[in-house]
Amino acid sequence: MVSSVLEAAWTAADFQGRLQRVGRERYHDKHSFHLKMHRGELSRDQVRCWILNRFYYQKNIPIKDAIIVSRLADREDRRRWIHRIVEHDGAGGDEGGIEAWIKLGEAAGIGRSTILDESNILPGVRFAVDAYVNFCRLKTVHEAVAASLTELFAGDLIAQRIEVIERHYPWIKPEGLDYFRRRISEAPRDARSALEFVLSNASSRQDQEKAVAALNFKCDVLWSLLDAVESACGESSRCV
Amino acid sequence: MVSSVLEAAWTAADFQGRLQRVGRERYHDKHSFHLKMHRGELSRDQVRCWILNRFYYQKNIPIKDAIIVSRLADREDRRRWIHRIVEHDGAGGDEGGIEAWIKLGEAAGIGRSTILDESNILPGVRFAVDAYVNFCRLKTVHEAVAASLTELFAGDLIAQRIEVIERHYPWIKPEGLDYFRRRISEAPRDARSALEFVLSNASSRQDQEKAVAALNFKCDVLWSLLDAVESACGESSRCV
Repeated sequence: MVSSVLEAAWTAADFQGRLQRVGRERYHDKHSFHLKMHRGELSRDQVRCWILNRFYYQKNIPIKDAIIVSRLADREDRRRWIHRIVEHDGAGGDEGGIEAWIKLGEAAGIGRSTILDESNILPGVRFAVDAYVNFCRLKTVHEAVAASLTELFAGDLIAQRIEVIERHYPWIKPEGLDYFRRRISEAPRDARSALEFVLSNASSRQDQEKAVAALNFKCDVLWSLLDAVESACGESSRCV
Repeated sequence: MVSSVLEAAWTAADFQGRLQRVGRERYHDKHSFHLKMHRGELSRDQVRCWILNRFYYQKNIPIKDAIIVSRLADREDRRRWIHRIVEHDGAGGDEGGIEAWIKLGEAAGIGRSTILDESNILPGVRFAVDAYVNFCRLKTVHEAVAASLTELFAGDLIAQRIEVIERHYPWIKPEGLDYFRRRISEAPRDARSALEFVLSNASSRQDQEKAVAALNFKCDVLWSLLDAVESACGESSRCV
């Protein structure tokens, strides 16, 4: 896509349509590893490999959100973003999303120390996630926020994932599913708030194209993560 | 100070003593502008000039704290730091410290739009505050936390400041003093938590010396801010 400063901005509806189209075409729910997961075709080790490696993404979420907060010059914008950090890290009696993901790992039979040991993370997963954090650090804050819009596509997927695990992977203890239950309500709310920010801040055609590109980039991050997991945790390998 | 990897670490008591000494020698309560303020010798315009320019420091505090949060790899450390952002930006019904400082400006007769207009900030103030934010972005996170330790010296000063304003500058409306009332309890608690972090993380002599240097640097930032204000807002000038 060649951006042009001369072309007229898309209408809000057109812009939103183009963002939604990124999800339909490139969101990781269409990745072969994901399709196998949802058809119940993954082995225990493959599911564990995914949970373990996806944890590297989870644990970096509050880091990238704090970067975004540090780059939002407007106090009201920061106030609308900061709860994401709190929800992942926890506060007071609430243990937060990162701990919930660790509990998912434990419910799937992975030891806590294995989950917390970064040396278990596949290089491709590390590169993809680090690329995302650096994107949020180095691109404009509007692009960083636009990259978070994969949450627009996450709501339905998360609800499905609970059913899928209960049906196909009943050896994962039910208490491990709390992470997904939290995100069913959090993800759509976060997506709405980020979408409002992007729609109102990306007003030129160039900014709009950058927002679409940021969302494409983020889809690449999530896709790459599954590529690395699929490649390392083949049906015969045992990587956890 | 020449750091050495060969020299033994200071004891915790010695290390803490050296941090405290930085405050006794270099904290901005010894700056001539500050001494004049506390003796009731500043004109209305000089007090306004200080409030207006110090706002640039205040508004950058949550930015630098979000940078620190983004650089704390440990979730527990982030959980202990994030309330600082919330206390400055506010949340829910609480308007937060930045809004409280704006109200201090209004109570001193400065219009809100003047306070919010960054072009009113003196270059020397901007350079000093930007240097602090960049320090937190570019140095180690331990040095960034150590730089916050000026709060160790702030507690008494803030309580005094309320008395000083009530006695010498009664034309500032009392509701403007809420910012200082908030900080009387917040600053010592924040300082204790940051001090614990520094004492337990700076374990080598080199790290300890870097922490002392970071606190010296931060004293320079606060001192420079007053230099700029004193120089621009001389007794005969009218800069607000």
